[in-house]
Amino acid sequence: MTIKQSDTIALSPADVAAATAAEITERDMANAVRALSMDAVQAANSGHPGMPMGMADVATVLFNRFLKFDPAEPHWPDRDRFVLSAGHGSMLLYSLLHLTGYADFTLEELKNFRQFGSRTAGHPEYGHGAGIETTTGPLGQGIATAVGMAIAERMMAARYGDDIVDHKTYVIAGDGCLMEGISHEAIDLAGHLKLSKLIVMWDDNSISIDGPTDLSTSTDQLERFEAHGWNVTRVDGHDPDAVAAAIEAAQGADKPSLIACKTIIGFGAPNKQGTAATHGAPLGDEEIAAARKTLGWTAAPFEIPGDIADAWLHAGGRGGAERTAWAARLAGKAEDVRTAFEAAIAGKVPEAADKALADLIETFAEEKPKLATRQSSQKTIEAVLPAMPALIGGSADLTGSNGTRAKGQPEITADDFAGSYIHFGVREHGMAAAMNGIALHGGFVPYGGTFLIFTDYCRPSIRLSALMGVRVIYVMTHDSIGLGEDGPTHQPVEHLAALRAIPNLNVIRPADAVETAEAWQAALHAEGTPTVLCLSRQGLPTLRSDPSEENLTARGGYVLKDGDKRDVTLIATGSEVAIALAACELLAGEGINAAVVSMPSFELFEAQDAAYQDKVLGDVPCVAVEAAVRDGWDRFIGRKGAFVGMKSFGASAPAGELYEHFGITAEAVASEARRLVG
Amino acid sequence: MTIKQSDTIALSPADVAAATAAEITERDMANAVRALSMDAVQAANSGHPGMPMGMADVATVLFNRFLKFDPAEPHWPDRDRFVLSAGHGSMLLYSLLHLTGYADFTLEELKNFRQFGSRTAGHPEYGHGAGIETTTGPLGQGIATAVGMAIAERMMAARYGDDIVDHKTYVIAGDGCLMEGISHEAIDLAGHLKLSKLIVMWDDNSISIDGPTDLSTSTDQLERFEAHGWNVTRVDGHDPDAVAAAIEAAQGADKPSLIACKTIIGFGAPNKQGTAATHGAPLGDEEIAAARKTLGWTAAPFEIPGDIADAWLHAGGRGGAERTAWAARLAGKAEDVRTAFEAAIAGKVPEAADKALADLIETFAEEKPKLATRQSSQKTIEAVLPAMPALIGGSADLTGSNGTRAKGQPEITADDFAGSYIHFGVREHGMAAAMNGIALHGGFVPYGGTFLIFTDYCRPSIRLSALMGVRVIYVMTHDSIGLGEDGPTHQPVEHLAALRAIPNLNVIRPADAVETAEAWQAALHAEGTPTVLCLSRQGLPTLRSDPSEENLTARGGYVLKDGDKRDVTLIATGSEVAIALAACELLAGEGINAAVVSMPSFELFEAQDAAYQDKVLGDVPCVAVEAAVRDGWDRFIGRKGAFVGMKSFGASAPAGELYEHFGITAEAVASEARRLVG
Repeated sequence: MTIKQSDTIALSPADVAAATAAEITERDMANAVRALSMDAVQAANSGHPGMPMGMADVATVLFNRFLKFDPAEPHWPDRDRFVLSAGHGSMLLYSLLHLTGYADFTLEELKNFRQFGSRTAGHPEYGHGAGIETTTGPLGQGIATAVGMAIAERMMAARYGDDIVDHKTYVIAGDGCLMEGISHEAIDLAGHLKLSKLIVMWDDNSISIDGPTDLSTSTDQLERFEAHGWNVTRVDGHDPDAVAAAIEAAQGADKPSLIACKTIIGFGAPNKQGTAATHGAPLGDEEIAAARKTLGWTAAPFEIPGDIADAWLHAGGRGGAERTAWAARLAGKAEDVRTAFEAAIAGKVPEAADKALADLIETFAEEKPKLATRQSSQKTIEAVLPAMPALIGGSADLTGSNGTRAKGQPEITADDFAGSYIHFGVREHGMAAAMNGIALHGGFVPYGGTFLIFTDYCRPSIRLSALMGVRVIYVMTHDSIGLGEDGPTHQPVEHLAALRAIPNLNVIRPADAVETAEAWQAALHAEGTPTVLCLSRQGLPTLRSDPSEENLTARGGYVLKDGDKRDVTLIATGSEVAIALAACELLAGEGINAAVVSMPSFELFEAQDAAYQDKVLGDVPCVAVEAAVRDGWDRFIGRKGAFVGMKSFGASAPAGELYEHFGITAEAVASEARRLVG
Repeated sequence: MTIKQSDTIALSPADVAAATAAEITERDMANAVRALSMDAVQAANSGHPGMPMGMADVATVLFNRFLKFDPAEPHWPDRDRFVLSAGHGSMLLYSLLHLTGYADFTLEELKNFRQFGSRTAGHPEYGHGAGIETTTGPLGQGIATAVGMAIAERMMAARYGDDIVDHKTYVIAGDGCLMEGISHEAIDLAGHLKLSKLIVMWDDNSISIDGPTDLSTSTDQLERFEAHGWNVTRVDGHDPDAVAAAIEAAQGADKPSLIACKTIIGFGAPNKQGTAATHGAPLGDEEIAAARKTLGWTAAPFEIPGDIADAWLHAGGRGGAERTAWAARLAGKAEDVRTAFEAAIAGKVPEAADKALADLIETFAEEKPKLATRQSSQKTIEAVLPAMPALIGGSADLTGSNGTRAKGQPEITADDFAGSYIHFGVREHGMAAAMNGIALHGGFVPYGGTFLIFTDYCRPSIRLSALMGVRVIYVMTHDSIGLGEDGPTHQPVEHLAALRAIPNLNVIRPADAVETAEAWQAALHAEGTPTVLCLSRQGLPTLRSDPSEENLTARGGYVLKDGDKRDVTLIATGSEVAIALAACELLAGEGINAAVVSMPSFELFEAQDAAYQDKVLGDVPCVAVEAAVRDGWDRFIGRKGAFVGMKSFGASAPAGELYEHFGITAEAVASEARRLVG
């Protein structure tokens, strides 16, 4: 068997049949991907054959000649990352993983494409099998996540040496990815940071779902990427040597690279190729038979001829020696560097960080500062950073407002990645996706800040953090009408509810400095769950003057103040806990015993056992107070309970006036309590 | 008084003092804007002086020489639209509106900048006063909304003639606007459609909040816009004649134009200008005094010297004659054209449209089709379109899937705007913002489609639809795990809850064809509220075979099936109503009387009086069923009620298997009902 790399077969699919079994070409290997893709989609009677068939040649060249990977060790830290941003073409990825020998992607899995419980979901799902580097499908997320991976690579290399960290990030992106706004934020940041190891292969097939892309775009993508500081080139995506030459050139560039691969969507399906008909539906038995003929593919569905299978396994075996050499280099590193590298990859919270947090909590409780929780958060970051080098952060151009940067925290630049702070620019969505990529890459725990209102701008990436279960910490400040004069465009009222609705996302709104430090501790330890910290702009008193040994915030909710015999429970979060305490005082003067429950996190509270929850809430009427909409609160207060909060958008005025105007006051809380008790 | 338009004073602020009172220059006029801006921010002790001071010269040239407007008739349909995309610079807009004579923007209002109840909110709020064309503040929204306005202008001109529709859309955008992803979607679409009357003036001051923009971007914006088919130029933003020449050139271009206006942020504040310190905080009394000296501005705070005030009023008076001439041209149009134009501007739903809807509902009820609600929606669009020419639509590249295009509905292109269908491209966010702009422009009721999951991608613009109260109809299909194999990245589980949390947004999830047509009717009549229609991918039986004379969907919730004596209420929406009915049958076999409530819209239901709500829900236990998370449901079912739905993300598999796996079945609903009743 010979693997002929200089396959120069041109566009006509008919030519391909000329290839002989004796001399396996990359076109033969690509046809294996095509056959598996069209057969799996047909078997599932659902899916997207067009993209895998169109990009099979490009992907084959990448996996056969360039990609550094070892299916035997899919988590090898120095592997190249491959991101299928056009996630609907998932059968391309599954075919490649199967053919190159990833254990998780058996032929059986491919036959179960899109079936319940299979590893081969409709779109690639991170965690379903080793070899899937990130979840894609929502367009543009892959390319933006890859930017984070490429940043992480540079930062790891700066810390631990490019003898053990030196890998590339490859992306296959479609027209849709490049039309999405997030692609702008991603490529702008990547160009600025000169992420030269990031190589994007654009499936330039000129087809979108509605038809030709010229129905809706006239952009010169090469010029566009060039404007953002990228190296760009265009090749025939069905000419393996041209693709290989472009990848080689990209590897040598001092900028990120875009390779526009001109392809025919559904390549090989003679009656449908080049049209939107191949995009998102099975080809049908007849067209598949015709495609087999066109491609010269005689094997039965899900069968790969032995010599072609061998050629693919050979490609999958290329990286083994390189990985062994890498392991030897790692073993040869100075003890402290090696240990630090391995600890970073392991991703555990160092004991020293927990100690620093415990000390800070004690200090807060003693000194009782009046700080905005965004300020307490900044102090927490300052305390933890020296003890946890894996912690890195940034802000979407609100550094001072978010309090995300510790004093003296060095920033990264295109010339120096040794720092730990990232100026993400006014790019909330790009920031969130990059954080996902940084977390997925490994070696870091990323946090990033913007205003809570702008969680709307990055919500698709927050959702992916939660769906993938990656530890990303969102530092979201200016969390209510308490921000005052900037008005309703900047005042979140529905965002707490909207975030709490996302599964596997911890939303924590701490009430004071102590809870803020506890919230950070909970976030750092939540290895499989992202956290949104919702922090105040305005100063808040410290309420927890005698902190327990336990992290009470990690319980989600707890009794902050209790009486002898409870008549009513007042529940609050964040800045409104002080209001609940004041209401408690008012009620005490009237002989009504109110307990005050601080409820920084619904999710963490609901993770407690029922007995704990019942004890905290008590078997009495409940009044909840939060400067936000009621949605989600009824689970605690019941249909007959009372809620003091927002019913509309906010307004532009000083914060104090807004609280009065919208009736979020101790008197209003007390009044509701009286009504329920009386 | 002479208005000297050829003001050639160069960058140095010191030169400005040389201007004499006898000869009012545009620099003098601009300084009035600067003085009002810095004084108002100082008085509020909060706000953004840097941008108004930096862009005062550019804005003065625009308002003094070019903008077609008449403060006496701020709603003149053929006025130029002016959008301050960099909405934090609101004092620029308020100053201009005040100085040119808009009645809503008195000096008193300017003195009350950012105070409760004033028209002069922290960011420009649509509806707070005539002259504010759209709400801005969340960066990038303005430029994307302006694209919609410019599309609407072309479409109105194509329908009614460019003798009565011929105006421009001007935008002032900042660095932040151009960094946001939405700007990409907007300028890509604008370039494709060759919106030559769209002129964007970029405040190219090289400063963002964190510091110089080169902390986070290295983009060549001119090259970027050129790649998207724009006409581009760069000018000294403090040289009025250069600015004027650029605007003139832009007016003659056959493409949209970007004018990069090189400015100094905070121009005139001698110690702070050119730095981020002027961006988002008052200058302070000392610096304001120094700025007064630098600018040669001797008037007291909020005082405008008479000759400068006169010059501004003269600018404000320029458009009156043109408006009168326009009115004469409109009056001279053929009766049918004039009537149609006026009806389009008035924006009422034609009687013929309501008749078409009533007929369709009757047909649906009689024929009882089994259709996905996305298909019923398409049939509704097809029924209404001929009767309501103001209805225009599109999709973010999911036309066939969303069912947004009627048979034969003509699309708009760069060469022909006579159609009523827009291929928005894979640009959910840009689509939503453009729809806001189309609605704000007047003359159209826009609808646009994508998958419900991708409401996350356009959520900031949906929020602005709601905050502004504009009639935009979101046609969001594939509304649950019922979409099946595409898996969790495409299956909304938290989106209904997240959308319901937004104030002033009607979320409607119809259960069948009848409810779908009713939902459309409710949406069309909701003049001050946007609507999200949540529609199924999968086929659903028609449940409403004897429709009342009343639009029951507009009630939000109603009893679909009742028994003699109610033991339990089953509440459901959309595709789960059929499941509730099946559960009702199961229970009936056991002697349990269950009522079934269809609850297509929480918001519309909660707008009903308490007696109606109580009657519908009944004084019995409630079980709710919806293929989504529980959040928001507790308000109806109470703390002790039961909910059958999703607790996690979905999965990739055929829809039927997913419903079984996640336990959203008639048996599960019946089982919960038994538990509550027993």
